[in-house]
Amino acid sequence: MDTVRMSLDDALSLATTCLAKNGCDEHNAKAMAGRMVQAERDLCASHGLFRLPWCVSGLKTGRVNGHAQPSVEQIAPTVIRVDGDAGFAPIGHQAGHQPLADCARQNGIAALALADMFHISAMWPEVEALADDGLCAFAFTASYPYVAPAGGTKALYGTNPMGFAWPRKDAPPLVFDQASSAMARGEIQIAARDGHSVPETAGIGPNGEATTDPNVVLEGAQLGFGGYKGASLALMIELIAGPLIGQHLSFESVDDDAGVGGPPKGGELIIAIDPARFGSADRYLAHGETLFAEILAQEGTRLPGSRRFEARATTARDGIEIPHSLNEAISELM
Amino acid sequence: MDTVRMSLDDALSLATTCLAKNGCDEHNAKAMAGRMVQAERDLCASHGLFRLPWCVSGLKTGRVNGHAQPSVEQIAPTVIRVDGDAGFAPIGHQAGHQPLADCARQNGIAALALADMFHISAMWPEVEALADDGLCAFAFTASYPYVAPAGGTKALYGTNPMGFAWPRKDAPPLVFDQASSAMARGEIQIAARDGHSVPETAGIGPNGEATTDPNVVLEGAQLGFGGYKGASLALMIELIAGPLIGQHLSFESVDDDAGVGGPPKGGELIIAIDPARFGSADRYLAHGETLFAEILAQEGTRLPGSRRFEARATTARDGIEIPHSLNEAISELM
Repeated sequence: MDTVRMSLDDALSLATTCLAKNGCDEHNAKAMAGRMVQAERDLCASHGLFRLPWCVSGLKTGRVNGHAQPSVEQIAPTVIRVDGDAGFAPIGHQAGHQPLADCARQNGIAALALADMFHISAMWPEVEALADDGLCAFAFTASYPYVAPAGGTKALYGTNPMGFAWPRKDAPPLVFDQASSAMARGEIQIAARDGHSVPETAGIGPNGEATTDPNVVLEGAQLGFGGYKGASLALMIELIAGPLIGQHLSFESVDDDAGVGGPPKGGELIIAIDPARFGSADRYLAHGETLFAEILAQEGTRLPGSRRFEARATTARDGIEIPHSLNEAISELM
Repeated sequence: MDTVRMSLDDALSLATTCLAKNGCDEHNAKAMAGRMVQAERDLCASHGLFRLPWCVSGLKTGRVNGHAQPSVEQIAPTVIRVDGDAGFAPIGHQAGHQPLADCARQNGIAALALADMFHISAMWPEVEALADDGLCAFAFTASYPYVAPAGGTKALYGTNPMGFAWPRKDAPPLVFDQASSAMARGEIQIAARDGHSVPETAGIGPNGEATTDPNVVLEGAQLGFGGYKGASLALMIELIAGPLIGQHLSFESVDDDAGVGGPPKGGELIIAIDPARFGSADRYLAHGETLFAEILAQEGTRLPGSRRFEARATTARDGIEIPHSLNEAISELM
């Protein structure tokens, strides 16, 4: 593939300028650009600059507010609510991070209900940021209806990811962020594009039939990971990232979008725990390391998130590569 | 199978008397017996009277304190800690339920760290009880090392279940309680006993080799449901039901037990949320029902937990059946 190499700083400038030229004020542009460059830094291209034209389309249709000013409200002693003002999710995260961290430290556990935001992408950045501050964190979001309920045949739940982070001493946090579906939607789309098959566990056809054809799965429904157990998690996440915080269920977001396209609108629930307040303050960090040492003593293992942390040394030194065609597409948006 | 039928009341008397004759005071006996009969009522025999001889063995070895008096302490504004005083888990749950529910209602979200308890069995009773009180609840516990980490070959994590409950209006709560492993330990043991094979996804042999022989899996390691994603959940639960609350990791519990047998000692983390404090107070119940209606509109589906609720009508009317051999074994303990 023909690619263009650039430094992380140049990638940030490029994305910020592109968003600013398409309707974002400086604060909004920097926040969304910063999130995409975090993904590039960690070699997660699917959440990187690849998303820039899509984000611009959201601005151009007028759905996304490029001048969003999120509001932060403490709606209960341990519940912070951020209204994203119809902007991109990262400015909502920025607004909510410190109030949530402070509230968790003060009380032991606290929750952040994020509402009315566009393009909630990977959630590891927000849970990692909380773990960098010494907290244990969980994040949940729902999306479009792609996954069938257990026993059913029609897409109803989102691929509904869950993020988790645990703080470590003198090491980057342990972080994972995984969909409730067996495969990511994008992986199935790529298999369809490239003419590859997918495992039978990935999904079913429109009539509930078993298939390994990604095109048939895309017309039918994806399945939860591990079958009904992943579907249970998807159902849980529908409830706690939808009705609990007054946001759409996945199947409702289709009507909301009304075929306009661009990044979807939604909400997110983040729960933060301060382990220092849970009765093992002198030991929890060392105790976690005991487990990590046992994991890593087994050949073939790695800690969740470690590949991303390793990528950072590489991209800081060598910069990143994006497809030439993407670079051209971005130039045309400026 | 030769069985003995009895009413739920008679089952409760039988179990209470048996525990009382083997070292429990009345309060401790009633709590543990009540939990086993809840399981029988819901036709979950694996957590029912079947466990009674095992519980008695824990009392006889002196590991379980039949006169436990759990202590409740608020260790942070939204963290309640219950020390189970080395008794059976249900008296710890009884002690912690109301303080947790009150704290969640007052603050929005709260946590209960349960420590030093024996025989944490199914966790749906405690999350269901919280949902009966109008709360959304999560429960997590770790156990013996049975499950390999992602990429590894040796048992390290417990089968680490997670329970979840969501309150409903004019209907029993939505409740699930599922292991992080692909199969329950007991299911693999039963397959071994009956000479059946297990799916390749259930586990691996001692050298990491693929197998469908349950005996080989029992000597090797179980696998997480859906592969590495279930293993990630098991890892998360190790951390939040172990180091976070100052309790054992699964691999450490083996040393603690020192081959004595009987029910294992451990801890449990419960998180309770009051949805009325999360910004959708007027709508969350109805909104949840919107999702449940969509699920049930698909042929072949049911809501998690519904089989247990249906069983209650049957067992209230007809009582329960236990194997004749179990009834004999219990008689011999009296």
